[in-house]
Amino acid sequence: ASIVVLPGDGIGPEVASAGVAVLRQIATRFGHEFTFAEHAIGGDAIDRFGDPLPPQTREALLAADAVLLGAVGGPKWSDPNAPVRPEQGLLAMRKLLGVFANVRPLKLHPRTAALSPLKPERTKGVDLVFIRELTGGIYFGAKTRSEHDATDECRYSVEEIERVVRHAFALARTRRRKVTSVDKANVLETSRLWRSVATRVAADFPDVALEHQLVDSMAMHLLTRPADYDVIVTENMFGDILTDEASVLAGSLGLSPSASIGGPGAGVYEPIHGSAPDIAGQSLANPLGTILSAAMLLRHSLGLTEEAAAVEAAVDHVLEHADLTRDLGGTATTHAVTRAVIEACN
Amino acid sequence: ASIVVLPGDGIGPEVASAGVAVLRQIATRFGHEFTFAEHAIGGDAIDRFGDPLPPQTREALLAADAVLLGAVGGPKWSDPNAPVRPEQGLLAMRKLLGVFANVRPLKLHPRTAALSPLKPERTKGVDLVFIRELTGGIYFGAKTRSEHDATDECRYSVEEIERVVRHAFALARTRRRKVTSVDKANVLETSRLWRSVATRVAADFPDVALEHQLVDSMAMHLLTRPADYDVIVTENMFGDILTDEASVLAGSLGLSPSASIGGPGAGVYEPIHGSAPDIAGQSLANPLGTILSAAMLLRHSLGLTEEAAAVEAAVDHVLEHADLTRDLGGTATTHAVTRAVIEACN
Ligand SMILES: CC(C)[C@H](C(=O)O)[C@@H](O)C(=O)O
Ligand SMILES: CC(C)[C@H](C(=O)O)[C@@H](O)C(=O)O
Repeated sequence: ASIVVLPGDGIGPEVASAGVAVLRQIATRFGHEFTFAEHAIGGDAIDRFGDPLPPQTREALLAADAVLLGAVGGPKWSDPNAPVRPEQGLLAMRKLLGVFANVRPLKLHPRTAALSPLKPERTKGVDLVFIRELTGGIYFGAKTRSEHDATDECRYSVEEIERVVRHAFALARTRRRKVTSVDKANVLETSRLWRSVATRVAADFPDVALEHQLVDSMAMHLLTRPADYDVIVTENMFGDILTDEASVLAGSLGLSPSASIGGPGAGVYEPIHGSAPDIAGQSLANPLGTILSAAMLLRHSLGLTEEAAAVEAAVDHVLEHADLTRDLGGTATTHAVTRAVIEACN
Repeated sequence: ASIVVLPGDGIGPEVASAGVAVLRQIATRFGHEFTFAEHAIGGDAIDRFGDPLPPQTREALLAADAVLLGAVGGPKWSDPNAPVRPEQGLLAMRKLLGVFANVRPLKLHPRTAALSPLKPERTKGVDLVFIRELTGGIYFGAKTRSEHDATDECRYSVEEIERVVRHAFALARTRRRKVTSVDKANVLETSRLWRSVATRVAADFPDVALEHQLVDSMAMHLLTRPADYDVIVTENMFGDILTDEASVLAGSLGLSPSASIGGPGAGVYEPIHGSAPDIAGQSLANPLGTILSAAMLLRHSLGLTEEAAAVEAAVDHVLEHADLTRDLGGTATTHAVTRAVIEACN
């Protein structure tokens, strides 16, 4: 399998190479051949090529079986009025690959649950997955700007809604059979369409329960009763906010993986944390979010279920027995934690 | 002063009359004359007049000095595809009165902090105010719907942004002199305009610090370090989500007041909780959110600072010494808590 690696900015290169090291180990142990090709994205690509998603990266992405991404952005390129910005690379990549479903599982590990800002009785039993629509909505709608005002259009087609909602229902079938669809149907026309499509799709999944939640209520319920949710599906902008809110429950951003899938070609796998430029280059970054993203890559893009489970078991082992990085209260380096995972993969 | 009372739906009438009772007591004690006129809004207005904001309510609103609102909506009218819906009454009222600044203070009372889903060390020292833009953005933009797709337009003018941001800076001057402006300037054109206007307005307030936050980061920071914030200002949709998220920190929705102000005429004061139809008519509702909203009414619309402080002190006293409603772990009725506040007002 041919895997494109996009190290990106800040701690991106460190965590990406941790993910690659684990994938190499899996290839050896299970007798697969993985090839890795590094390409530029984000701030790094702007600095080197003046383009946050240069043509050679685009070409490689279109030919890849899967993509492992580190992190993108940083204060160096943070002027929102700059004509070329790192996050444009991310958005262009999502559109190019057509990865309309951003999947973010949220589970609490006993050792990190203690770091959650929520009381333990609230987070007990949390095991949910967000499916965020990733290639539509206000992110990609028409924009205008004049001296006097500005506009952003949110547009959703029936097809865009249907495919991501179907994805959520199919996933719920492999889990606790409950889908929560989040919208703002009391105000937005796109949300009313979203709700009606979700209701229609639900008819094809009679074994899965569908509930509708308004986005403002969801922002509350994520904190008051997160254990009640199984699969939560929502549009791009609401998903951006709610997945970040939910990620805090886990106690550390450093552990959470994500997958952006559903396109005709490669899926993109990346930790949910940012580029953390303040700790870049010091082997302080937690590699586990990227390593768990690599596990999702094995499962979703390469169909290697046993291999994915081996990586996840190794991470569980490390979480229980090894020294961890600073964000988890430990003193271990990125390298040491990565080595511990690799050893546990054997 | 002439006060329009909009009881609305569910527990709305019970909490609204608690607020009125306290305002009557204040009028007596301080020698003011307040007149109260009840009008229909929301589901109740749909049932009685087929219109969530009937003409007689509109007329009364335009002539009022201030508006006290209970709550609007309920499952009876919750079909988002119905041509007439309760929340249309709210939205039309906001636009009619031009109340562009929705103000939501968030403070923790020691007795309710224990109910917060957040660990006490996280909520220690929280004392912030949200200013949510309330009459612009995607709520009021052009909408389209066809068989194939739907659109909602988010539009902001320089004037709309400037007046609400100025409001936030002026408020920060009376507090800890810090404004956090929340946007999604890495994606939205309206947010880039928002950020540039906020930056320009900040120059007129050299004694107030301005920081910009992306909405997804803000959703996280509200949980990890809420005590760091003073005044948070944001656009309509982001404000809807973030204020509801933040309200959970207080441990109970029943205590939190809100004010919608800034228009040429009356301000609207209401508790942040919903209409809670499941407990309606049983004297189980917590009246303190409405009573604290009445205090904001005294201060902001009537300029009665001492009177507002008397109500707030009475609520503090009740929170410390009296039996409270069920949501706060007590057994008291709505009436009993209201009576306790009235007695403490003397
Ligand atoms: C960087 C930004 C454009 C991006 C988004 O909003 O989608 C990020 O917040 C994310 O969630 O991946
Ligand atoms: C009922 C709804 C239209 C309203 C809003 O979104 O503004 C409510 O959620 C609120 O926050 O007052």
